[in-house]
Amino acid sequence: MVSFLSDYGHADEFVGVCHAVMARIEPSIRVIDITHEIPPHDVRAGALTLARAVQYLPDGVVLAVVDPGVGTDRRAIAVEVEGGFLVGPDNGLLAPAVAMVGGARAAVELTSEAHRLPAPGPTFDGRDVFAPAAAHLASGVPLADLGHAVDPMSLQPGIVPLTHVADGGVQGEVLWVDRFGNAQLNIDPAELSGIGAAPGAPLELQIGDDRRIVRWVRAYGEGKEGELVVLVDSYGLVSVAVTRGSAADDAGLAATRSVTLRLPGD
Amino acid sequence: MVSFLSDYGHADEFVGVCHAVMARIEPSIRVIDITHEIPPHDVRAGALTLARAVQYLPDGVVLAVVDPGVGTDRRAIAVEVEGGFLVGPDNGLLAPAVAMVGGARAAVELTSEAHRLPAPGPTFDGRDVFAPAAAHLASGVPLADLGHAVDPMSLQPGIVPLTHVADGGVQGEVLWVDRFGNAQLNIDPAELSGIGAAPGAPLELQIGDDRRIVRWVRAYGEGKEGELVVLVDSYGLVSVAVTRGSAADDAGLAATRSVTLRLPGD
Amino acid sequence: MVSFLSDYGHADEFVGVCHAVMARIEPSIRVIDITHEIPPHDVRAGALTLARAVQYLPDGVVLAVVDPGVGTDRRAIAVEVEGGFLVGPDNGLLAPAVAMVGGARAAVELTSEAHRLPAPGPTFDGRDVFAPAAAHLASGVPLADLGHAVDPMSLQPGIVPLTHVADGGVQGEVLWVDRFGNAQLNIDPAELSGIGAAPGAPLELQIGDDRRIVRWVRAYGEGKEGELVVLVDSYGLVSVAVTRGSAADDAGLAATRSVTLRLPGD
Repeated sequence: MVSFLSDYGHADEFVGVCHAVMARIEPSIRVIDITHEIPPHDVRAGALTLARAVQYLPDGVVLAVVDPGVGTDRRAIAVEVEGGFLVGPDNGLLAPAVAMVGGARAAVELTSEAHRLPAPGPTFDGRDVFAPAAAHLASGVPLADLGHAVDPMSLQPGIVPLTHVADGGVQGEVLWVDRFGNAQLNIDPAELSGIGAAPGAPLELQIGDDRRIVRWVRAYGEGKEGELVVLVDSYGLVSVAVTRGSAADDAGLAATRSVTLRLPGD
Repeated sequence: MVSFLSDYGHADEFVGVCHAVMARIEPSIRVIDITHEIPPHDVRAGALTLARAVQYLPDGVVLAVVDPGVGTDRRAIAVEVEGGFLVGPDNGLLAPAVAMVGGARAAVELTSEAHRLPAPGPTFDGRDVFAPAAAHLASGVPLADLGHAVDPMSLQPGIVPLTHVADGGVQGEVLWVDRFGNAQLNIDPAELSGIGAAPGAPLELQIGDDRRIVRWVRAYGEGKEGELVVLVDSYGLVSVAVTRGSAADDAGLAATRSVTLRLPGD
Repeated sequence: MVSFLSDYGHADEFVGVCHAVMARIEPSIRVIDITHEIPPHDVRAGALTLARAVQYLPDGVVLAVVDPGVGTDRRAIAVEVEGGFLVGPDNGLLAPAVAMVGGARAAVELTSEAHRLPAPGPTFDGRDVFAPAAAHLASGVPLADLGHAVDPMSLQPGIVPLTHVADGGVQGEVLWVDRFGNAQLNIDPAELSGIGAAPGAPLELQIGDDRRIVRWVRAYGEGKEGELVVLVDSYGLVSVAVTRGSAADDAGLAATRSVTLRLPGD
């Protein structure tokens, strides 16, 4: 079983060709497409998406490709973790997911020519390097056959945006805006409890100079239509939402935007 | 075999995570993605799409999620029909498809905690409630194990827009505009025959105050390039189309728009 | 194994219904989606995409549908090649891929009523004609059962845009702009070598009246951020790219746009 994430989109044949390459190496392979609509070259978004999904994936191989440095000296790697392997570029894309599943046990740089496709040009490593490596691992080829070992401590770390408490509020940032316009923050509900906030009670939400009073609700549909609310989302993080609307549109939220939550009047 | 429809889109990991959840419960499961690009929260569009597709689906389980009321008191249900089960929210999404395949034989509310995932927040029932239920049903778990029985007559009905005959014309509405800009109406060709219209002959098409003479053709490609035509579409309903063009763009058609067809001069 | 390409997009249920139809005919079938985002009715783009992908596909059946003439007298065909079959409309869509894999050995027009679905209207041949034919071939039905033989020489040829050398430069055209804004040309690197150009050296790139000096690099990431470069892409053709940017946006490139490359000062 291979779980596959990329920024390849669906307009071109990139995803389909990677599926085809894997099927030729291992005809019984099954592939789950996590998403291929990571914004082009957005390693941060890819890493966060993979970290959210990884706990739900079946055992096996994760193939992840968001790779602005393709063809340069960034390494192509495979990392062994509990339950399987992650394959992709060594640019921080895999790091948060690796950490989520307990850390790396071993890693190799994908240098084995015998486990790649011959490539007319060095620009489509998904097809020529990563998909073949994933398929070989899924079919039982030992990790060590795919290249020389590298120290897991030498792998590129991921970005972990931190929150901080200032003026009685918790300042964080938007990790992700989903299709429905909900904005997930890097704020844990325990941090809100830490400043005295509680579900059901109002909070002040500050975005730039804009301050609004919002309710901490339990479900998107609990607010009035069009009401801006905060809630604990399906991954256990605090999100900003609009009932039957888009918080991104309504409050101008986008990934990396800074947001502060505090008790009203503080 | 599970057939899966939603409004999750492809930008986020929602669809992939539901696939992964099902694969972990039943590794041999096979999933057909009907579509995941139902406009966000558009239960009507989801219900119509599912009704169009259902007659072509293999026996097994249909998993459908367009769920603006997630986390509120709307029920999560599974419905037994001839050939399998439909799983989704009880908001009218499933109703037209259930009717298409002969009606409900039994239904349960999905209340069994043992057949859900533990959820950090009550906002992603696709992952935590519906996909697990679909996978359990596909793997042979009896319907009754998933929750307590509910009367199928108590399920939320679907929307069925009706046509009516007025001033010698048939007035209906646009059910669906497809990718090519073709606008499917809720008008049956027998209704056009009923007012004396016939394939090959001209008709007057009225949209708002705009009236045009159009031909009733057999195939999209039969008109001249750019010609507005009506034809019986692949689902047996009357559609408005433009040969090698978009009727939606040309005639300002969109879902729910009212349209009248009559004999010219009537 | 069926590899499936179309212009159906993902917004409607077209792709899912074709999957479902195939699964009902042959439950063990496996389908690889090459892409379904070919621009509506763009036979040229579909043919080029299929030709790029075909060398990577597993043996079996290719199902390809970009079919502006559906319902007219264009033929529906299946073509036997080394390693399998291609199924689609006879409008040039399949021709370049057929040539890539060594040419047609036999062909039939898909006229067998027993191997189609009964269709309410003649407008969705993907569902009613092509997907059933692909599934029957994948399940072992002989080609000759699907219809009467046609001379492979009578099939619609594909479009092959040619380059030519003029004023010491190579003039070609843009075949394809991918998601990242890279523009693949129909120019082979040997043609650049033929006018004295070499990797690492500068070239003059002319698009309309606009002339710029660009570097011939090895990888997208080798240029400075925002630098316009040319390189040999992953299919072995010359492409115009912008490092971490979009050549399409930067240089106004789109499919069929004419482009000339020559030595600077020539």
